Amino acid sequence: MTDARAIAENYIALWNETDPKRRQALIEKGWAPDAVYVDPMMQAKGHAEIDGLVGAVQERFPNFRFNLIGKPDGFGDHVRFSWSLGPDNIDAPIEGTDFAVVKADRIQTVTGFLDKVPAV
Amino acid sequence: MTDARAIAENYIALWNETDPKRRQALIEKGWAPDAVYVDPMMQAKGHAEIDGLVGAVQERFPNFRFNLIGKPDGFGDHVRFSWSLGPDNIDAPIEGTDFAVVKADRIQTVTGFLDKVPAV
Repeated sequence: MTDARAIAENYIALWNETDPKRRQALIEKGWAPDAVYVDPMMQAKGHAEIDGLVGAVQERFPNFRFNLIGKPDGFGDHVRFSWSLGPDNIDAPIEGTDFAVVKADRIQTVTGFLDKVPAV
Repeated sequence: MTDARAIAENYIALWNETDPKRRQALIEKGWAPDAVYVDPMMQAKGHAEIDGLVGAVQERFPNFRFNLIGKPDGFGDHVRFSWSLGPDNIDAPIEGTDFAVVKADRIQTVTGFLDKVPAV
């Protein structure tokens, strides 16, 4: 049985980790070698591409942090959780919900949806 | 590009279809032959098992109907939507969110999560 909370917390920690070596260690520990990430704007396959994607988002939003919203939920190999992205101490402008498939405590796939985006 | 609304509406129509022949026709049209359904309580693989699962839920909740909540959302092969299940004209006691992988307009997988369940 997958620990939905641990998976979600490690996932958020990865997105907030700006030190390249620590970020890489989190990916190696928590993601399968051929893991796939996909959301409406980006996709990546494998550790190197996922690391590059996380780094690119951090560069685009340098003062933003990810936080969990609510309680991660899971059953079997399946996990879902919602998150916010924004500067500290204000209402986050971006929110989303991610669905993950996890085997042997390693993320195999993440499919991300956006729940809230800033008005253009 | 998958039509998230059409996928979701056909999916809800299937769950509400109690005529066995019409139900089977909806499954054959909308689901891949080896499609997989999984939620916290049930799983099914292939048309016959999916048909049996839908029929079992209908027998368990004979006066309940499924309805979409909000707007189905999708990108690429990925769709998500929320639904309610309950008798007409009252607040539905059960709600959930499903996410599906769709290829060539046919559902390949559905992973369902529960958002609201009755207090025991």
